[in-house]
Amino acid sequence: MSDRDPRDVIKPRIRALKAYTLAPRTAPVKVNQNENPWDLPPALKEEVLERARAQPWSRYPAFIPADLCESLAGFAGWRADGILAGNGSNELIQVAFGCVVEAGVKVVLPEPTFTLYRQMVTVFGGDVIGVPMREDLSFDVDAMLAAAQAPDVKMIVVCSPNNPTGAGLDAVAVSRLLTAFDGLVVVDEAYHEFSGWSAVTLLPKHRNLVVLRTFSKAMGLAGVRFGCLLADPDLVTELDKARLPYNVGRLTQAAVQVAIEHYDDVLKPRIDRLVRFRDALTVRIGAIDGFDPVPTSANFFLVRSRWSPTDVCEAMYERGVLIRNVSAYPMLGEYFRVNVGTEDENEAVVSALTAIAQERT
Amino acid sequence: MSDRDPRDVIKPRIRALKAYTLAPRTAPVKVNQNENPWDLPPALKEEVLERARAQPWSRYPAFIPADLCESLAGFAGWRADGILAGNGSNELIQVAFGCVVEAGVKVVLPEPTFTLYRQMVTVFGGDVIGVPMREDLSFDVDAMLAAAQAPDVKMIVVCSPNNPTGAGLDAVAVSRLLTAFDGLVVVDEAYHEFSGWSAVTLLPKHRNLVVLRTFSKAMGLAGVRFGCLLADPDLVTELDKARLPYNVGRLTQAAVQVAIEHYDDVLKPRIDRLVRFRDALTVRIGAIDGFDPVPTSANFFLVRSRWSPTDVCEAMYERGVLIRNVSAYPMLGEYFRVNVGTEDENEAVVSALTAIAQERT
Repeated sequence: MSDRDPRDVIKPRIRALKAYTLAPRTAPVKVNQNENPWDLPPALKEEVLERARAQPWSRYPAFIPADLCESLAGFAGWRADGILAGNGSNELIQVAFGCVVEAGVKVVLPEPTFTLYRQMVTVFGGDVIGVPMREDLSFDVDAMLAAAQAPDVKMIVVCSPNNPTGAGLDAVAVSRLLTAFDGLVVVDEAYHEFSGWSAVTLLPKHRNLVVLRTFSKAMGLAGVRFGCLLADPDLVTELDKARLPYNVGRLTQAAVQVAIEHYDDVLKPRIDRLVRFRDALTVRIGAIDGFDPVPTSANFFLVRSRWSPTDVCEAMYERGVLIRNVSAYPMLGEYFRVNVGTEDENEAVVSALTAIAQERT
Repeated sequence: MSDRDPRDVIKPRIRALKAYTLAPRTAPVKVNQNENPWDLPPALKEEVLERARAQPWSRYPAFIPADLCESLAGFAGWRADGILAGNGSNELIQVAFGCVVEAGVKVVLPEPTFTLYRQMVTVFGGDVIGVPMREDLSFDVDAMLAAAQAPDVKMIVVCSPNNPTGAGLDAVAVSRLLTAFDGLVVVDEAYHEFSGWSAVTLLPKHRNLVVLRTFSKAMGLAGVRFGCLLADPDLVTELDKARLPYNVGRLTQAAVQVAIEHYDDVLKPRIDRLVRFRDALTVRIGAIDGFDPVPTSANFFLVRSRWSPTDVCEAMYERGVLIRNVSAYPMLGEYFRVNVGTEDENEAVVSALTAIAQERT
C-alpha cells in the first residue's frame, strides 16, 4: 500500500473547486428550485406507467432514440437529426462544453448566472471570462461581444431567461451575438416557456447556435431528468461523439413522450396560470415596504431586500417557506430568489414576507 | 451570418474521433449486448411502478440520494459515503476520467477492452497507452505495470471480467496493481456477479482503488440506466465535483431499490442459472468443428471462428440471431462474441452455428 495520497492525481483545478451543492432542507412550502409546483395529473402518470410496464427493462434503450427525437422535433419545431436527447439539460451542457473546452480555451459567461457553466468550464480545463450584468441585472450584450474579441474565446453561454436574475435576451440580441461572434453561442432556454420566445427560430440561419431545453421546469419533470439540445445537424454529429451511449432510459422516454402529447391540454394551460400567478405575486411582494422584486421573464424572480437576505431566508424557513439565498452570487448581495408556486404557496410567501417586514420596521 | 464552419471550434481530437455506435438491428434472438435475457418479473415491476406513482415527478430528486447510497452500501459491502450513484456506470467512467485526464496525462488500458474508455480519454484530451492482452487473451499484469512506469501515467483502467474477452483479474493481480502503482486503479466490474469475486474486498486497504458497478447486466436494468462507483470517501468527495447534480431520477431510484431488495430471491438465482447456461453453452459450441469458445468469467464469451466473423455474424443474422462482430478490435480478427440467453435463445444459437459450420465444411 502506497503512502501517496491518491487525490494527488486529481486535476488541481478540480481539487480547488468548491462542490456545487444545496443543503438538503425541506419545508411545507418549497419555492427554492424553480420547479413546477404541480405534479403530472394522476391520469398522465398512469399513462407513463402503462407504457413503462410494457417495456423490456433488461434491454438497453435504442442507441439513438429515433422515435423520441421525432417527437421532440415536432414539439420544438426543429429537425430530428439536429436534436440530442439527454439525462437533463445538465448532461448536454457537459457534452457541448466537453467538445469545445480544454486548456487554453476561454468561454464568455454573463454573471451572475447558473453555477454549473463555470464548474464545467473548470472541469474541462478552460477559463471563464465573466461579464457582469448591467446595473439593472439585464444582459450587457455590448460587453459580452467585446469580451468575446479576446484570443481563444470559442463559446459564449447565455441562460435566457437567466437564472437567477430572470432577464432574457430577445431575437435581436441573440442575432447580434450569433452574427458578430463566430464561435458557438449556447442559449440555455431552461425557462423559455415562461418568456414567450425561443431562439429555435434562429436555428435555420445560424449554424453556430446551440439551444438547450429542459423538461424540469415548465414541463414538470424535474424528478425524471430530461433535456435536449438543438443545433445544426453537422454540429450535432460532432457533439454526439461526447454523449454517453444509452443515456436516456426507457422510463424517462415514456414520461417525455406523454408530456409532449399532453402539452396542449395539460401543460400549456398550467404554464399560462404560472405566468399570471408570477405577475400577481411580484405586484404583491412589491407592495411590501422593504422588498423590491426584479422584473422577470421566468417562473422565478429576484427580490431586493432591505434586510440581510441570509436573515430573511432563515426567517422564511422558520415560517415553513424555503426560498433561495443567492446573496453569495456576484452583484446579488442584497437579493433572494423566489419561484412561483401554487395559489396557496404564493399566499404563504406573501404572508411570511409581510410578517418579516413588519417585525423589522 | 458568418462563413466560418462552427465545427472549427470543436477540439481536433473529437473531430477525428469515430463515433461509438451500434447498428440499430433487431432479431428474434438478441445476444449481442450482454444483457440479462429476463425482464424483471411483473410483480417486481409493479412494485417499482407503485413507488414511482407515489413520487412527486415535478420535484428534483435529493441532491445526494442518501437512502439509495445506504441501500447500495449494504448491498455492495462498502460505506455509503464512499459511493457515487450514476445514470449507468458510463456516467461514472466519465466522472472519474474527467477528474484525472487532461492534456499530457496518460492512461494505461489493456486491449482489447470496452471502447468507451479510450473515447473518454480522448474527450478529456489525454493519451492512452494500450497494453495488449497475452496471446491467450488473459491480462498481462507485468506489461501493464511496466507501461505504468512511463511519465505522466495517472490511471490504469481494467474491466474485470473484461469486455469483450471474458477474462478477469483475481485478488492477487488487482492487489499487485494497487501496490506497485500509486495512481488510480479503476476496476470496472460490470460483469463481476458472473465471476464470483469483487475488488470491493480490497477497498479498505487501498485508497487508490476505484470500483465501478452497473445494474445493466446481472441486475437486469439495462433499460433503466444505473451504476455506481465505490472508493475511499476522501477520493469520492473529489470525484463528486465532476458529477452532475440530480443525475439519477426518481423512477430509476425506485427500480434500483426494488432490484436490491429482491436480489436474494429473484436476481441471484437467475445469475446462478445464467452461469450454468454459459458453461453448458460453451461446451456445446466447442463441440462444433470450426468454432472455439474462449474461457470466460462473464455472461458472454468470445468464439474463435474458422470462417470470417463478419460472414458468420451475417449468416447468424439471416437465421434470426444477433451476435456481436468484434473482429475490428485489436487481436480479435478471428472472433465473434455471444452472450448467454434464455434456454431457447441458447438453443437457437447452437442450432444456427451448427448449420453455419455444416454449410462451410
